[in-house]
Amino acid sequence: MEFTFLGTSAGTPTRARNVTGLALRHGSGRHWYLVDCGEGTQHRLLHTRYSLARLQAIFITHVHGDHTFGLPGLLTSASMNGRTDPLPIIGPPQLKTFIDTSLANSDSTLSFELRFIDSETEDFHWQDRAMDVTGTALSHRVPCQAYTFTERDLERRLLTDRLEADGVGAGPDWGRLQKGEDVVRENGTVLRSEDYTTIDRRPRRLVVAGDNDTPELLAETCHQADALIHEATYTQDVADRVGPWPQHSSAKQVARFAQAAGLPNLVLTHFSARYPARAPSGPVISDIADEAREVYHGTLFLARDLDHYRLNKDHNLECDRS
Amino acid sequence: MEFTFLGTSAGTPTRARNVTGLALRHGSGRHWYLVDCGEGTQHRLLHTRYSLARLQAIFITHVHGDHTFGLPGLLTSASMNGRTDPLPIIGPPQLKTFIDTSLANSDSTLSFELRFIDSETEDFHWQDRAMDVTGTALSHRVPCQAYTFTERDLERRLLTDRLEADGVGAGPDWGRLQKGEDVVRENGTVLRSEDYTTIDRRPRRLVVAGDNDTPELLAETCHQADALIHEATYTQDVADRVGPWPQHSSAKQVARFAQAAGLPNLVLTHFSARYPARAPSGPVISDIADEAREVYHGTLFLARDLDHYRLNKDHNLECDRS
Repeated sequence: MEFTFLGTSAGTPTRARNVTGLALRHGSGRHWYLVDCGEGTQHRLLHTRYSLARLQAIFITHVHGDHTFGLPGLLTSASMNGRTDPLPIIGPPQLKTFIDTSLANSDSTLSFELRFIDSETEDFHWQDRAMDVTGTALSHRVPCQAYTFTERDLERRLLTDRLEADGVGAGPDWGRLQKGEDVVRENGTVLRSEDYTTIDRRPRRLVVAGDNDTPELLAETCHQADALIHEATYTQDVADRVGPWPQHSSAKQVARFAQAAGLPNLVLTHFSARYPARAPSGPVISDIADEAREVYHGTLFLARDLDHYRLNKDHNLECDRS
Repeated sequence: MEFTFLGTSAGTPTRARNVTGLALRHGSGRHWYLVDCGEGTQHRLLHTRYSLARLQAIFITHVHGDHTFGLPGLLTSASMNGRTDPLPIIGPPQLKTFIDTSLANSDSTLSFELRFIDSETEDFHWQDRAMDVTGTALSHRVPCQAYTFTERDLERRLLTDRLEADGVGAGPDWGRLQKGEDVVRENGTVLRSEDYTTIDRRPRRLVVAGDNDTPELLAETCHQADALIHEATYTQDVADRVGPWPQHSSAKQVARFAQAAGLPNLVLTHFSARYPARAPSGPVISDIADEAREVYHGTLFLARDLDHYRLNKDHNLECDRS
């Protein structure tokens, strides 16, 4: 599994950070998924290898503009580029009103079908061949979701001893069984893939959270997750000064949760514009990292735009700095 | 007068060019005007000295997304930055529906008042202290305007011989007269500014056109204009291949009009993404310039993002390449 940050700033863009967007790929094909779509997401994509023609689905955590205002432009660009495949958009119901009105009042029509899926139903669950996606309700000023991506269709290893013991010699049937297909032999007997193959590893799992002031809501879905991507809009001192109304998390809060949950990897993002990379005085982005490291002892990353991450089959998370 | 291109690409952004936006300033203060607001306009502004707090008015030529999809993000960022001054938005009536729906469905409220002004009324005319703005209907797939900016409140020169002849000695009254104010003297007589001052130059005038397939519609407003900023989406050969349906202009068409109109300066913009700066084969952006120069013998510019132009009081147009 791979992912690339398209934006890591809270509320407004800065020179270095766009507002929220994340491109996620299973890695076994060129299809990919987009989580949130702040203004300028399509611009960031021009600097990556993700193509709008291969976009498999869009997941929106909540309706705030810094997570949604890039949708009309991204969709019309996909249309101008000739996309024809239907596109699922998973998110709160107001998204449909926003998108439909934006298209209707800009004389736009799309060359492909949009399929709106309400993320706020209690039994929300989505999957395609490569990925299984569930939602977890968070605590923010508006309804907001975390999406948990669990890979499907893991590679199978043939139990060759058993095949040979049952008189099934090497041949095309082995290939089918390994792909997960059952095989009917010439004599009418059925070989079931699950009897002759095994899966040697657990699926990779990534939790991508929207804005949230209560990380503990993620406890259950973070069980067996390899990594959590979560906002850390402020350091604790700034969060205390700002007060509870924005309903965001501090670095300390998220780090404390991640440590308690035993999460091996934590990626913080969605930083207030008050934390630049460098400044002669006042807060800087490394304050966020310092605060998180005080309580979290797993592998910590602070997201930057266009940084590319690989979650390997051995469950290690690696980052190629952009 | 000064202006900076915030986007120069037609339809979709490219790596080098954003979609349409132009920042325009009178030059006598920090107030400025925005013409069109494609997605990512606020991002481009972060690389300029134009501040959202000093934005005086927004002019939208037409409703297409590459000229409007940046509005919700730009407005909410101005609000998050604490703007309180009311903001006029001049454009087609659908803009209000688009903006109101975008704000309502993203849980956004603005810290300032939006004042929608319909650009499509026959008697459209807008002015503030520094600028007088009129509209000209163009020919495109949807109603579309050109905006003509003419500077107001030009500096006055005192007619000192006449003042002295009439017994008005140097003093504070001279300053008031020079500012355009009439003065009531102690003896009750009124000195009228227009009798004792003169304006030595004609006002600078800039025409900023939206998408348009009939440049000749601009003949009247281009009379006495110093410069025309106009789209040249294609070269003529591509325009012929594409056919008339997009209702855009070729470089040749605009250049021929500018030559016939005697325009001293022509700035072409809104280029199809098929014209990169360099390419091993196929069309390049210099093809647009070459085609225009064949028929236009004034000063020709091809706009690039963040290029900054100065229209001087001597009516010369200069460009500082970004």
